[in-house]
Amino acid sequence: MTVIDVNADLGEGFGIWELGDDLALLDVITSANVACGFHAGDPLIMRRVCAAAVERGVAIGAQVSYRDLAGFGRREIDVAAPELTAEVLYQLAALDGIARAEGGRVAYVKPHGALYNRVSRDPVQASAVAEAVRVYDSSLPLLTLPGSAVHDVADGLTVVAECFADRAYTPAGGLVSRREPGSVVDDQEAVVQRAVRMAVDGTVVAVDGSEVTLKARSICVHGDTPGAVALARSVRSALSDAGVALEPFT
Amino acid sequence: MTVIDVNADLGEGFGIWELGDDLALLDVITSANVACGFHAGDPLIMRRVCAAAVERGVAIGAQVSYRDLAGFGRREIDVAAPELTAEVLYQLAALDGIARAEGGRVAYVKPHGALYNRVSRDPVQASAVAEAVRVYDSSLPLLTLPGSAVHDVADGLTVVAECFADRAYTPAGGLVSRREPGSVVDDQEAVVQRAVRMAVDGTVVAVDGSEVTLKARSICVHGDTPGAVALARSVRSALSDAGVALEPFT
Amino acid sequence: MTVIDVNADLGEGFGIWELGDDLALLDVITSANVACGFHAGDPLIMRRVCAAAVERGVAIGAQVSYRDLAGFGRREIDVAAPELTAEVLYQLAALDGIARAEGGRVAYVKPHGALYNRVSRDPVQASAVAEAVRVYDSSLPLLTLPGSAVHDVADGLTVVAECFADRAYTPAGGLVSRREPGSVVDDQEAVVQRAVRMAVDGTVVAVDGSEVTLKARSICVHGDTPGAVALARSVRSALSDAGVALEPFT
Amino acid sequence: MTVIDVNADLGEGFGIWELGDDLALLDVITSANVACGFHAGDPLIMRRVCAAAVERGVAIGAQVSYRDLAGFGRREIDVAAPELTAEVLYQLAALDGIARAEGGRVAYVKPHGALYNRVSRDPVQASAVAEAVRVYDSSLPLLTLPGSAVHDVADGLTVVAECFADRAYTPAGGLVSRREPGSVVDDQEAVVQRAVRMAVDGTVVAVDGSEVTLKARSICVHGDTPGAVALARSVRSALSDAGVALEPFT
Repeated sequence: MTVIDVNADLGEGFGIWELGDDLALLDVITSANVACGFHAGDPLIMRRVCAAAVERGVAIGAQVSYRDLAGFGRREIDVAAPELTAEVLYQLAALDGIARAEGGRVAYVKPHGALYNRVSRDPVQASAVAEAVRVYDSSLPLLTLPGSAVHDVADGLTVVAECFADRAYTPAGGLVSRREPGSVVDDQEAVVQRAVRMAVDGTVVAVDGSEVTLKARSICVHGDTPGAVALARSVRSALSDAGVALEPFT
Repeated sequence: MTVIDVNADLGEGFGIWELGDDLALLDVITSANVACGFHAGDPLIMRRVCAAAVERGVAIGAQVSYRDLAGFGRREIDVAAPELTAEVLYQLAALDGIARAEGGRVAYVKPHGALYNRVSRDPVQASAVAEAVRVYDSSLPLLTLPGSAVHDVADGLTVVAECFADRAYTPAGGLVSRREPGSVVDDQEAVVQRAVRMAVDGTVVAVDGSEVTLKARSICVHGDTPGAVALARSVRSALSDAGVALEPFT
Repeated sequence: MTVIDVNADLGEGFGIWELGDDLALLDVITSANVACGFHAGDPLIMRRVCAAAVERGVAIGAQVSYRDLAGFGRREIDVAAPELTAEVLYQLAALDGIARAEGGRVAYVKPHGALYNRVSRDPVQASAVAEAVRVYDSSLPLLTLPGSAVHDVADGLTVVAECFADRAYTPAGGLVSRREPGSVVDDQEAVVQRAVRMAVDGTVVAVDGSEVTLKARSICVHGDTPGAVALARSVRSALSDAGVALEPFT
Repeated sequence: MTVIDVNADLGEGFGIWELGDDLALLDVITSANVACGFHAGDPLIMRRVCAAAVERGVAIGAQVSYRDLAGFGRREIDVAAPELTAEVLYQLAALDGIARAEGGRVAYVKPHGALYNRVSRDPVQASAVAEAVRVYDSSLPLLTLPGSAVHDVADGLTVVAECFADRAYTPAGGLVSRREPGSVVDDQEAVVQRAVRMAVDGTVVAVDGSEVTLKARSICVHGDTPGAVALARSVRSALSDAGVALEPFT
């Protein structure tokens, strides 16, 4: 039987501010990328999300980021490697301690936003992130893009590839940059069909019409836009209807 | 044989800024209260201090604080209890993960600055701090004042009392407020003699000349003032000369 | 003709996070209390709100706060007076410069949240805030509660009293604490009627049924709850229908 | 008579942390680049530095930065232009208000650290900084490197070039990167001689031995290293002995 994981970003409020509907998403996904306080998330939000994830059997991932609340972790920062390693280690350990206090544990690590993009092409920052995982718990997988530089530097670590149902792909299997038109698939039915095909066939139709093979063990859905939860529910339904089992990859 | 612990605050720089001489103090003390990033300390500093503490066999304590870099954790903040619990849990877990990555572990918890003072008299905030320790690892002792409200609320936790060689005491065994003249003992020789008496006899001479009994398992020395390291060395020497063994209380 | 001002808090998002509907409120109110970055608000939000306020002829006030993004400025902090003065001065100057760049200027100062409450009873922090206004521009009025300690310490400054259409009042003319039941008036029609009576008669019915005189030049409406903008619109309509002119107090 | 300005970075502490000896430097320099709270500096420090600068007749410059306390503004951040403009405007206005409260005013703007380097080669961020100055007060000069991209985008603004007595120069008149050996001139006597030659002849000897022409109206000295104040004093003395008048460029 085909098995796939569905992951989404959660716990991305801060203090009085909220973002997305965490509880609704937790009923749809199998893995929650929980913000750790550096781009979003505060200790109380982290506790609540971890408690709700444990209750539902959703896997908890550490969504580690640059230290950048003002920019939501979306701006690349030239952090030196030793500092980046220490910052990722700090976030990972903080979330894991909170998850354990709620009866769970951190099961994987996924870099957020600009750090996610940066480590996909910069071996220095990728190594710095991998080193943090290695010294904390080398059994924790890193969730990232297929072809990311993380794969090259993650010696001894497990790297799991994910795909995006709502993003356009190049013929080479990369994501079309958000700066280019058509980078995001807006048609909800198309998104659902792409998710099913990614899970069942391991393929996606690229922007030039060619078929690309994607070996992804997890599909990322977004939760912070209007209609996001409804779309995530449709993806989940369609996957079930297609006979795909939804399970955490961890 | 009489045994005492000597503790001090460490890792209280931030980014480019330094405070105190961590490495020199680590050669004198037996327990290091390591800042966790909320009043001071950043992940890289935390890593370095933990590595140096592990190397020297110095016990690592989580010096948890209000979230207040601008005020160095020295201003009381009316944080609600659930938020305070989550914030202490976050700091404790972050430091423990870093300590473990360096081959050690957090062995105790000591609130910092205004939080230390507040929990000594406010059972609500004291309970919030105790709850964080309880859900993280209920075997971790809390280091605090004799007579602190923490003792009353720490059901199931170990609470260890400490004393201050350089602070004046009231006849009731409390600290003379820093707002009053004579609250700090300036004469270094007097500080050394008080430390020895605290360790050997468990007593201190209060401001009115009466003798007060102090049941303290640890003596706190300060590290951020000029001459602090030299004074700490003198205290350690005098304790050894008096036949007192210096060992962590954990 | 009776004249009243209607003020509300604006620009209280931060980075990616939003709070309230600033543009909708700007079409209803006559004075905008603009967050200055310490409890909410970032430079880009401040610029946009100032531009929109200038366009609509809405007066701009500096909504100064404790430095507390994580707590949205709602926790009292024991800041020393010289630091509080400098922090208020910093916020006031920053917003004024931004307002001027958009063709306006800061026309008044209103402390936010916990600072608003604290200065209403603490003459030390009240003096610290007043001193910041005095050294920046002593012609700027301070907007606060009738009976606030600010009135006593604002030597040489103008202090303007405001009232709250949706808050219950004590027979002495103070606000019923939010910790007590019935502190907020939930019935929207009642809120509208109270606003009209405050403006036209300068009175409000207190919780014991007695009539209290309120000499307020401005009515505060809230913008961050569901239905807040609709309620504010109703208040404005009813005031106009009652022949009250809406104008900034500055 | 030859006239030169000597500038240095000031007010770069934060909260409890100090950096450099501001008062000593203020007796040596003619222009103070005052940190505005984004990479260093807090409102109280800003007030104290401004008061001391006004007292001594030293010109006050706004040392604007990326928002990056943890990295001291030394890491490039990919901030979008509208946000960067708003952030620079915020810092500039805050410092100017504080300077005015102390009887002075901001007389120029100098980007700090990574922002200084970035705007020297990136016209987008350079334009964003220039735009902030333009909308705040287009009469304020920008202090930067000769050949910086700032010169190209500062339409309508005054741009003033500075040189560095303790940095090695390329034959093209640029600074040797700090990543290369020999980028900083360590010999103090050499630094003093270079400063005099820069002021008197407008030249410097580059790393290849060739003589380079530098049209700089200001010399930057550093204040945060051991011996920095003594070196700055020597530079000042030597300039005076060489008949050069020290005056702010503003």
